[in-house]
Amino acid sequence: MWAVYLNRGLEIRRDYPTPSPPSGEARIRVKLAGICNTDLELMRGYLNFRGVPGHEFVGVVEEAPDHPEWVGKRVVGEINAACGVCPTCRAGRPTHCPNRTTLGISGRDGAFAEYLLLPVVNLHEVPPEIPDEAAVFVEPLAAALEIPEQIHIHPTDRVVVLGDGKLGNLVAQVLQLTGCDLLVVGRNPNKLALLARRGIPVAHVEDVDELSADVVVECTGSPEGFHLARRWVRPRGTLVLKSTYHGTVETNLTMVAVDEVAVIGSRCGPFEPALRLLGQGLVDVQPLIHARYPLQEADKAFEHAARKGVLKVLLEVSP
Amino acid sequence: MWAVYLNRGLEIRRDYPTPSPPSGEARIRVKLAGICNTDLELMRGYLNFRGVPGHEFVGVVEEAPDHPEWVGKRVVGEINAACGVCPTCRAGRPTHCPNRTTLGISGRDGAFAEYLLLPVVNLHEVPPEIPDEAAVFVEPLAAALEIPEQIHIHPTDRVVVLGDGKLGNLVAQVLQLTGCDLLVVGRNPNKLALLARRGIPVAHVEDVDELSADVVVECTGSPEGFHLARRWVRPRGTLVLKSTYHGTVETNLTMVAVDEVAVIGSRCGPFEPALRLLGQGLVDVQPLIHARYPLQEADKAFEHAARKGVLKVLLEVSP
Repeated sequence: MWAVYLNRGLEIRRDYPTPSPPSGEARIRVKLAGICNTDLELMRGYLNFRGVPGHEFVGVVEEAPDHPEWVGKRVVGEINAACGVCPTCRAGRPTHCPNRTTLGISGRDGAFAEYLLLPVVNLHEVPPEIPDEAAVFVEPLAAALEIPEQIHIHPTDRVVVLGDGKLGNLVAQVLQLTGCDLLVVGRNPNKLALLARRGIPVAHVEDVDELSADVVVECTGSPEGFHLARRWVRPRGTLVLKSTYHGTVETNLTMVAVDEVAVIGSRCGPFEPALRLLGQGLVDVQPLIHARYPLQEADKAFEHAARKGVLKVLLEVSP
Repeated sequence: MWAVYLNRGLEIRRDYPTPSPPSGEARIRVKLAGICNTDLELMRGYLNFRGVPGHEFVGVVEEAPDHPEWVGKRVVGEINAACGVCPTCRAGRPTHCPNRTTLGISGRDGAFAEYLLLPVVNLHEVPPEIPDEAAVFVEPLAAALEIPEQIHIHPTDRVVVLGDGKLGNLVAQVLQLTGCDLLVVGRNPNKLALLARRGIPVAHVEDVDELSADVVVECTGSPEGFHLARRWVRPRGTLVLKSTYHGTVETNLTMVAVDEVAVIGSRCGPFEPALRLLGQGLVDVQPLIHARYPLQEADKAFEHAARKGVLKVLLEVSP
């Protein structure tokens, strides 16, 4: 099959072996896949990943040895494949299973290929009212929904989202629905305009007052982003870390203690609410799509996705 | 009056002006005061404090212009004097008031003197069953109680307290009462023995498994302490920062995000539960007292308190 392969660089292979599902898993024919910042980082060496990248996808189940009822269904899939039996899994935290593999990120080939494997328990059927172009955003939208899953956002809260990129946009759209007093801070006029068109107030970094936010969501992944967020969050407020950082960050922990700030890491989230919001038209992902390439031109797609100001680039894998 | 005065060094003055209470405040004759690590840090230049240090005390109200009913009462006092009118105060977070002064720490003379001033709203009467030697621990015990005030400690939680000093001891005694699976990690055999005598399991750093704790409370104030705590806390667990740090700390925020850890700063806490626990004999502070000096020998007391292995040193101010 055709597949993108990372091996200290991006290779496009046409003879990559088509995988066969073991017991409990399904083989899915990928229709559409999205390039995430994590994919760009993997290409730059993050986690030393070798294999097929890609974890945002929509596809159709072709084979599921123990679960024939899934065959033919259009699905999206949770990306962490957990062991199901360790104490972490049994405590109800399978996305943190120490034995997990993660689709296209760690120990498991991903979605930038004609076929992928995932456990059947990871699959969610996509209702017909959600087109492929929206379904491919379920995974990152679920990551945005992890924030209200973890912390209580009050409708009276002042919430600042730092970052106007793909993740910041989805986080802002989700948090807007709480009725909170929302502000998105960014640098790119086009990206900010996209948010403003949905009625979301936007601002530049210098417009935010210190200690003014009940909640700050850091979506830039840069140490400067963390330091800004730290300055904006009020005493006893919450700083949500929604992105990964290169290397270590030097920070003043005394101020975290004195101001009793809660710093909350946040990663993968729940798929069902993401499907509900997309199905009900409460989140709009269409304007985030900046380009589409066939899988065979993945090199151009990656190059495009890495350009400044570009939001989502999709890979068209099969009809 | 006699007073300890910090001015790039410790001075013991006999002619320091006796303060007069403004409206809303009370003058308190200090009976007993405790030396805290923060006092030692102030002496080394922390916060550039100049004035009378000391924030752990028990005393008797001598004068209270608007509240004569308080005169003669034996009291302890919350150390943050808030403005009461700013948005932070009106939101119910007076200990974070940006206009606050803090007894013996910032903008307000403290307890290492014959008399101190505090707003009457900060005072708590000490019931007769609590002797001065226990009442002087109400402030640090309240700081320990801030942990269960901020986060839900489940009786089934594995909780690791890192640090066997004054703060770690009080935190451990408070958390032991939840029925949780507690472990205190320290280096000093005498301090660990003190905890073990109360039935609290103790261990050395090398005995703790990675990712094994639901909650880790960092009470050492050292960057190494933070890094250890970070390694011990499980995914989606909570790391409570209970101490202040010198300078900045370099840390891996990506792991905080990926493991969805909550890092919670924690400072001053509620006085009434501290008085209840002491009154009911559920916390034992007596063994923490390592020495007592008259106020006039505060220099010797500070020197003693700074020695390795020493727990609480008290200043006897008036009978």
